[in-house]
Amino acid sequence: MTKPMKGKELADLIRQDILAQTDAWKARGIEPRMATVIVEGDPASLYYAEAKGRAADKLGIDYELHKLPAHVSEEFLLSVLDNLNKAPDVHGIMLELPLPKHLNKERIISAISPLKDVDGLTPTNLLAVVTGTPGLYPATPLACLALAKHYGYNVAGKHVALVGIGETVGKPLLHLLLREKATVTACHSKTPDLSVHLKQADLAFVAVGRANLIRPEMVHENLVLIDAGINETEDGSIVGDAQPEVLDHVAAMTPTPGGVGTVTTAQLFANLMTAMNLQASREEERTR
Amino acid sequence: MTKPMKGKELADLIRQDILAQTDAWKARGIEPRMATVIVEGDPASLYYAEAKGRAADKLGIDYELHKLPAHVSEEFLLSVLDNLNKAPDVHGIMLELPLPKHLNKERIISAISPLKDVDGLTPTNLLAVVTGTPGLYPATPLACLALAKHYGYNVAGKHVALVGIGETVGKPLLHLLLREKATVTACHSKTPDLSVHLKQADLAFVAVGRANLIRPEMVHENLVLIDAGINETEDGSIVGDAQPEVLDHVAAMTPTPGGVGTVTTAQLFANLMTAMNLQASREEERTR
Repeated sequence: MTKPMKGKELADLIRQDILAQTDAWKARGIEPRMATVIVEGDPASLYYAEAKGRAADKLGIDYELHKLPAHVSEEFLLSVLDNLNKAPDVHGIMLELPLPKHLNKERIISAISPLKDVDGLTPTNLLAVVTGTPGLYPATPLACLALAKHYGYNVAGKHVALVGIGETVGKPLLHLLLREKATVTACHSKTPDLSVHLKQADLAFVAVGRANLIRPEMVHENLVLIDAGINETEDGSIVGDAQPEVLDHVAAMTPTPGGVGTVTTAQLFANLMTAMNLQASREEERTR
Repeated sequence: MTKPMKGKELADLIRQDILAQTDAWKARGIEPRMATVIVEGDPASLYYAEAKGRAADKLGIDYELHKLPAHVSEEFLLSVLDNLNKAPDVHGIMLELPLPKHLNKERIISAISPLKDVDGLTPTNLLAVVTGTPGLYPATPLACLALAKHYGYNVAGKHVALVGIGETVGKPLLHLLLREKATVTACHSKTPDLSVHLKQADLAFVAVGRANLIRPEMVHENLVLIDAGINETEDGSIVGDAQPEVLDHVAAMTPTPGGVGTVTTAQLFANLMTAMNLQASREEERTR
C-alpha cells in the first residue's frame, strides 16, 4: 500500500498533458503565455513567482513577470491589469498575494478578467465553484482532490472531514467535495475538538496553515489525509499542518513538501490550458 | 421546556419590527411596495403569491401581482422585470418558481436587480451569502437560523447536521451556519446513513422536501431539529421532512405547518425592508 501520497507522479502526468496541449496550440500559431503581477515587498512571494517562471519554461509556456514597486498606486496597478486583460497574447494572469495594505484587495482582484484568472480569485470564478458552472477553479483545491483520486481514494459517498474553510482553499474545496458526493464535516477554529471529527472520517482534507495542528493521537489507522498546509518553521524548513509522524498512524497521507504543493504548481498551468479553451469558445460564440 | 418550536411568536416580532419600519418610511413620504411576477400554470404558486398579497396588506405594504400567461415569451418576461427594476416606487421583486420549461431560468433570474431581489435568487446575492458581504439573503435559511436563536439555541461551536444542500435553501444555509461558527456536517442523497450524523449532532437543519425522511429511530433525545421541508400529502395536508412523531424523541422541533414556513413569510417582508435600506444607501453613494 502506498502510504506517503507523493505529488510528483501526478504532477508529471499533468505536465505531460499540458505539453501535448501547448504543442497543439503552437501548431495553430498560438504561443501560450502567462503573466504574473507582483507588488514588491514580500520576498517569499517573489521567490515563488520566479519559481513559476522556471516551471513555465520547462513547459514551453511564455512567462512575463511584472514587478511593481511597493508604493505603487491602485490606479497604476489597475491599469496594468487592464492592459493584460486586453492583451490578446496573454492567456493567464496571476496576481501575487498578499498586497500591501494601501491597496484595496477586493477591488483589484475583481479587475482581473475572469477568463484569464488562472488562480480562480475573482468573484465570478468563486461563484462558478459554488454553483458548479464552467470557470477557472483555484489550483490548490483541484490538486487536493486530484491527488486523492490518483491514489485510488474516491470521495463519493465517503465521510470527509474538511479542516479549514478559508476563502482561497477550504471554501472552494468544500463545494468541490460536495459536488463529488462526499458527506462533508466542515471544521474550523471554533470547532471544540477536531479529533472527534477526524476519528470518524474516511478522508480528511486539511487547509489551515498552522504547523503541528494535526497530531498522531487525533487520527485513526484507516484515515486518508490530504494536507494542503504550507508552513515555514523557524529553521526555514517547510512543513504541513500535520506532524510528519502522523504518517505512521493513518492509511495514507500527503508529504510536505512534495505533496499537494507539487501538484498545485502543475495544476496552475493546467488552469492556463483551461483558460485558453474558455477564451477560444468565448471568441467562437462572439464571432458566430 | 418548549418542545414544539412554533413560528408564530417570532413571526409576530418580525412583523412588529416591519410595521415600525414601514411607518418610518411612510413618514418620509415613501410607500413600501413589493411586486410579484408569476407565469401562470402552477396553481400552488398562484395560491402562495396571492397569500403573500394578503400578508403585505396586513403590514401596510403595497403589493402588485403580475400574472403572465403560460406561453409568455422570454423577451416579454425580461421586459416586465426590466420595468420593475427601473420603477422607483417598486422596492422588492419576487419571481415565482417554477417557470415553464420554455423559459431560461438562469437568464431570467439574473435579470432581476440584486438590490430588489428579496428572494435572494440572483448570482450577486448568492455570492453575498457565500462571502458574507451585505446583500439580500434568501428568507428560508434566515428563518431557520432565526427560529433556532429565538428558542435559545445558538449554533456557535455546536455540531450541526445539515440535511439537503439545494441551491435555494441548503447551500445558503450551509454558509450562514459556518459564519455563525457551527461545525457543519453537510448530508445529502448520497450520504449512506443519515442517522449516523443525526445521532451525533447537537442541532439538525433539514431542507430536502421529502415527507417521512426523518423518522424517530434516526434522532436522539437531546437533538434540536429545524425542519424546513414543506410537502403536500395525498390527502392535501402539509407535512415537513420529519414525521410528526419525531417530536417525542428530540429536545425540540419545529412543527409543520406553523414552524419555519410561518417565519419565512414574515422574513420575506423583512427582506423588503433590507432591500429599501440597501437601495437608499446606494442612492446616497451615487449622489454624494
